[in-house]
Parts: sequence; C-alpha cells; structure tokens
Amino acid sequence: MGPKNALYAQSGGVTAVINASAGGLITACRRHSHEIGTVFGASNGILGALHEELVDTATLSDEQVASLRYLPGGAFGSCRFKLPPLEQDRRPYERLIEVFRAHDIGYFFYNGGGDSCDTALKVSRIGGEMGVPVQCIAIPKTVDNDLAVTDNCPGFGSVAKYVGTSLMEAAIDVRSMAETSTKLFIMEVMGRHAGWIVAAAGLAQRQPGDPPHIILFPERVFDEDALVARVNETVAAYGFCTIAVSEGIRDASGRFLADSGRTDAFGHTQLGGVGPTLANLLSARTGLKNHWAVLDYLQRSARHLASAVDVDQAWAVGEATARLALAGHNAVMPTIERVSDDPYEWRIGHADLAGVANVEKTVPDAFITADGFGITEAGHRYLAPLINGEDPPPFVDGLPDYQLPQLAPVTKVLDAYDV
Amino acid sequence: MGPKNALYAQSGGVTAVINASAGGLITACRRHSHEIGTVFGASNGILGALHEELVDTATLSDEQVASLRYLPGGAFGSCRFKLPPLEQDRRPYERLIEVFRAHDIGYFFYNGGGDSCDTALKVSRIGGEMGVPVQCIAIPKTVDNDLAVTDNCPGFGSVAKYVGTSLMEAAIDVRSMAETSTKLFIMEVMGRHAGWIVAAAGLAQRQPGDPPHIILFPERVFDEDALVARVNETVAAYGFCTIAVSEGIRDASGRFLADSGRTDAFGHTQLGGVGPTLANLLSARTGLKNHWAVLDYLQRSARHLASAVDVDQAWAVGEATARLALAGHNAVMPTIERVSDDPYEWRIGHADLAGVANVEKTVPDAFITADGFGITEAGHRYLAPLINGEDPPPFVDGLPDYQLPQLAPVTKVLDAYDV
Repeated sequence: MGPKNALYAQSGGVTAVINASAGGLITACRRHSHEIGTVFGASNGILGALHEELVDTATLSDEQVASLRYLPGGAFGSCRFKLPPLEQDRRPYERLIEVFRAHDIGYFFYNGGGDSCDTALKVSRIGGEMGVPVQCIAIPKTVDNDLAVTDNCPGFGSVAKYVGTSLMEAAIDVRSMAETSTKLFIMEVMGRHAGWIVAAAGLAQRQPGDPPHIILFPERVFDEDALVARVNETVAAYGFCTIAVSEGIRDASGRFLADSGRTDAFGHTQLGGVGPTLANLLSARTGLKNHWAVLDYLQRSARHLASAVDVDQAWAVGEATARLALAGHNAVMPTIERVSDDPYEWRIGHADLAGVANVEKTVPDAFITADGFGITEAGHRYLAPLINGEDPPPFVDGLPDYQLPQLAPVTKVLDAYDV
Repeated sequence: MGPKNALYAQSGGVTAVINASAGGLITACRRHSHEIGTVFGASNGILGALHEELVDTATLSDEQVASLRYLPGGAFGSCRFKLPPLEQDRRPYERLIEVFRAHDIGYFFYNGGGDSCDTALKVSRIGGEMGVPVQCIAIPKTVDNDLAVTDNCPGFGSVAKYVGTSLMEAAIDVRSMAETSTKLFIMEVMGRHAGWIVAAAGLAQRQPGDPPHIILFPERVFDEDALVARVNETVAAYGFCTIAVSEGIRDASGRFLADSGRTDAFGHTQLGGVGPTLANLLSARTGLKNHWAVLDYLQRSARHLASAVDVDQAWAVGEATARLALAGHNAVMPTIERVSDDPYEWRIGHADLAGVANVEKTVPDAFITADGFGITEAGHRYLAPLINGEDPPPFVDGLPDYQLPQLAPVTKVLDAYDV
C-alpha cells in the first residue's frame, strides 16, 4: 500500500503570501514522497473539495512550485463559504470524508483563518467517527493578524509593510503642498474587528509628530468631537494632518461608521467607505480641504512590497505542516513563536486547533496610546520586526512577472454533490 | 562680478520623481559654479518666491543632493497657486523680478506642468521689460503626461508602473475568489482631462482577456448602457471583471460623474469618488458583488515602485536645464525625445515655452480601441517603455528611508508682500 495522499485548500480572503505557504508545503511533501503521496489542491477552496474539483500539483515543476513564493492571490482559488455547524448539518462533513476516501487522502491541509481552524477540527473528528482517519492541519493565514496562540500570522506582515509605506509616502506628498492644498489626508485600511492593520500605519512614525498623526482603531469607540479637536490641533501644530482609519470603526451605539446611512455635504447619499464618510464629516466640521484613499484589495495583494519576514514565515509554516503531518500530529496548526524582539528571532511551534478555532485576537490595550489615537512603544516593538526585509518578485517589462500555475484537473469518481 | 544665482521652484501636484529633477539640476549647477552661483530653492513653490521665502541649497552635501533621487513629494514644498493673467495684474510678476534683483538671480528654473510653463514664459518677458534679464527654463513635471511637445513627461512613468502593478495584483486576488466573492473590481486613478494614467492600467494586460477588462477614459463620453453590457459579458466569459477608471469621466452633458461640487485654487472642479459612484451604479444595474479602491495620492507618491526610466529622465531633465541655461537659452523647456520604441531609446531635446504653455495633450484616438474600453497595440507600444526598470529607495527597518532635507532659510531683504 502506497502512502496516503494529501489535500491542500485555501480559505477565505487571500493574502500576498498564502501561495508561499503552498510552496513550502508542496516542496516539503516532495522531499517525503514515501510518506505523503500526491498533493492535491482543492479548486476554489472548500467548495472545490465538496464538489470533488481537485487539481494535481504533481504536474508543477520544482521551479513552478518555488515560484509560488512570489505569486499573490490564491493560486488554487479560495472561497468564502462557511460550513454549517456540525450539530445542524453533518452532510457536508461526511461528503468531505467521502471525497477523501475516494482519493485516498489521509492528510487535509487547510490554509486559512479562525473559521478554517474550526472546520479542520471538525473534519478531523468526523473522519475518526467514520473510520476514515484524516490528519487535519490548519496552516495559518490572515491579513488581519487576529488568530489566537500564534505570535503573528502570515499575511499580516506584508499588509503592514504596504500600509506603513503607503502612509509614509502619501504623507510626504501632502506635507509638501499643505500650505495651499490638501491639509487633511485620510487612508482607509482593512480590519473590521481587529485593528492590527491600522496599527501598522503607526510604523511610519519615526519621530514624535511624524505622520500618521491619528490612528482610528476598531478597538476604540469612535468619538467625533475628540477627533475633530485632535485634527484641528494637529493642523495648528504641523500644518497638515494624516489619518489612518480602520474600515471597522463604530460609534457608541455599535454602528459601523461606513454603514451609518449619512448623506454627504451636498445632500448625496453616502456611498459607503469609511474613508469618504470621515472625509465628509471632517470637511463639514473643520472646513479643511481633504483627500482620501481606500486601499481595498491592493493592500492584501501587493506582493511587490511584501515583507521578507512575512514571506519566510509563510513558507516556513507550509514546510512545518508537512513535518507535523509526518510526526503524526492531528488537529493542530503550526504557529510562529517570538524568541526575541530585537534582534528579532522566531521559531515554528504548534498549537491544538481547539485553542485557535473561532478565537479572535484584537489589539491589546497596551499597544494603543491612552488617547486612543496612536500606538505605544510596546505596540511598535511588537509590529516593527514583522515588516522587515524586502523580497520583490521578478519583474519583466516593468511589471511583476506573476506566473499563474496551470493545474491539471483530477478525474472525478463520485456523484455530483449539491452544496 | 560673480556669477548670477539661480532660483528653483516646484509647482503644482508633486510626483514620485520631481525631486530627482531637483537633484539633477543642483548636481549639474555645482559642476558649473563659475557660471551659476548659489542655487536657491523657493519654499512652497511660487508663493515662497513672492514672499521671498528662499532656502539655500548650498547647505546640502553632495550626498544629500544625490539622495533627492529617492525622495517622493516636493522636497522644497510646492503649491497650487496660479498667477493672475499678466494683462490683469502685473504686480506679482514685478514682485518676482524684485526678488530676483534682490538676490542677484539670473536663472529661474520652474519645475511644473503647463501652467508653470506659462508663468515662466511671462516672467521671462517681464524681466526683460524691467531691465532685469532672467533666463527662465521650465522643467517638465506632471503625473498626467499631458504636456505638449515632449514625448512623455517625468512623473508619469512611475504612476503608470504603480497603476499597472496595482491593477495586476488586485486582479489576481479577485480572480482567485470570484466564484463566491467579489466579481467586479473598480480601481479609480487620477487624470482629470487626459487619460494617460488610466491607459497605463492596460499594461497589465499581457494576453487577450487579461485584466483590466475595461478602461474608462476621460477622452470618451461615459455610456452607462454600453458599460453595463460589457461588464455582464466579461463576467459571463471570465467569471469576474476588473475596471480601471479615470477620475475625470463625464457623461454626455459634460458633467463629471464624480462631481463633488467643489473647485480648487485653479478653478478646476475638485473630483472625488468616481470609484464608489460607479460601484453603486453597477451594483444597482448588475447586482454583482463589487469592491473598489481609490488610489488618490498613493499613486503619485509611490517612490518605492518608481520606474527606473522615469527616475533617469527626471534626473536628466534637471541636468539638461543647467546645460540649457549655460548655453544661454531662455523661455525653453528640456524635452524627452523618443528615438525608438523597442529597444527604447530616448534623448533630451528642448522646446520653446510658447509651444508648451497651456496646451493639454490627451490620449490620441489611435491609442484607444474602437469600443473605447481598452488600449491599442500602438498605445501599448508608446506606454510600455516608460515603466521599465526598478529603482527602489534604500530601506531601513522595513520602510523606505526617505530623507527630508533640512534647508537653511535665506535672510529676507525686501519688505513683506501681500499676495
């Protein structure tokens, strides 16, 4: 009997480095082909697994696998599809096990965030109950850095570097024209519940008074009057003001600012986006000329400016996943353990999925200044190493040379499944 | 009698490489200190010149001058301030000449766009009339690439590279999740009247069908029905659709789609938010889940991703400005002349300001596909070389190491001036 095969799937919002984890995993599995057979990929995440839409990574050359290090997005496709609670509907879990049995899959590697850890945990349990043992290992991935247990999460460091750089660059621009032009610049970033990304904008501040002058965290209740006062003080002191704002800030009633149903200064219905919402609000309250940017997907796909630390860690958790599988682990996730801040040292550990699944790690109070508008020294110390180093992709004709792998579909053997 | 001094001023919206032109100019002037004395900088552009707020670049070391190559924004400060028409008010022009006389300035180097060419032309004329001969040389700069006579304009190539890269990266992201998530992605870029920047998004397309699927040019009347049809066709064919849109698109009545109702100091309508406007419109008409990004200042300050060709050309026009001055030229601008497309070769020429001032160069019909939604092979051939090569700034601790020069103010000798 040959070795069991593996199924790798990507889950949820993609990152600039999720494919590096795939690259690390596949590379490590190839070194142990006597213990881990074919590494299949699920097309478009867990939906592909349910529909038995698998691809065979064996068709990729070693060079193609290595080049996954440089490719943003999800090379295998990802999806936003949450399995129903197990108690409510066992059917999709049992379907997964059927697919695993049909393709002799003994390893399920699920690259995602908190939801994915939960799914991997349940699949492992159901497999056991059905007599189809599957080692389920979650591979951490999220731009939001909100996974518990691991010190940080692959995907975050590159967003952090992009956000810090973008804020720094835009602020230099605004500063140089503030006398007659824009005095207030607002940059909206992701992070609906956890403010790690917006906190990273604070890394652009190297001296007191440097931009960003104001950071608005989802961990703090939005206080309009306090913000207006701080904006006015900042412009009085420096001639301009820069704000980094999380998409997820909420008022005292718990309402997202971007969903507040406001109309703008001209009576138009607010279009959505906390950046323009805040710009309109501050324009009305301060009269300052403003500009705003909304980074949206650019921040999580900007592989051209990835953090080398982040890429290395993403690759490493992929490799470690194979090691954990070979060592017989089940229902675990490789983690990143911080050994020291400066010089930054880290190593790979692992954690039981039960402690990771569905636990959201927000920015601790110790990392946010007392006024709620900045990051503390402790916050800076935590964040700074994660953006270190550059690891640009190859460029061709002035643009990144991103290679989308062409993957051969695996012949289906099961009946169709209705999700 | 020593050599005449020079005054350098930055004008209008800054770019990622305008300081490279300053660096090239100052470096070249230092090599000819017998002919060109002190190079003063005007603080915050022409307003600094009017207010006699000058700085002395002699306090910068050669290394600091060289590092201007890497600094985005305007190192000396810039402004949006348009001098009144000469026929209407000679006073500011005469004031400039007084400032020039007071500081023994015989060279005025004005780094800006079409408006600045016009100002430089007039200053040259008034100086002559007042018996204070000043050699006025405009140094081309604009992200919009809309200057006449020069084949392209420093500042544009870097925006083009940033926009092309950003579109490519975001599209890879969207593509990998389109089955269950966002199917329509809209990226708003600058370019109020000229669509060069949005055209550059087209460089991301290497194969037919590649993103961007749709480009919306300010040179074409916005046709909602045609757009909706194309979006639906694109999603049917590829599963997702990406749109690059210029902030300046207008409907058949000439109204900007994103008209915010405000105007800037030049009387230009201030635009904001065509991205969300279009997203709302297409959401209502197609029902597709969408995301949008607004690049705003990030696109023109992203020195971390500058085009090496652009940086080289920006430096070169600065150097050439000194050469033109030494050769006795007046009321001219150095230009970039294209020698060949592939391999790309260029050289520096020069043009009379009369032919450049207030002439806006838009994207020619030959560069826009017949359906109005893409760039032609000719457009690609023109644009492609301008984004070539990478020239990243030095990084420290994971972020660009941008050095803002500390410049010593020059003692004022004239009475205050009321603008």
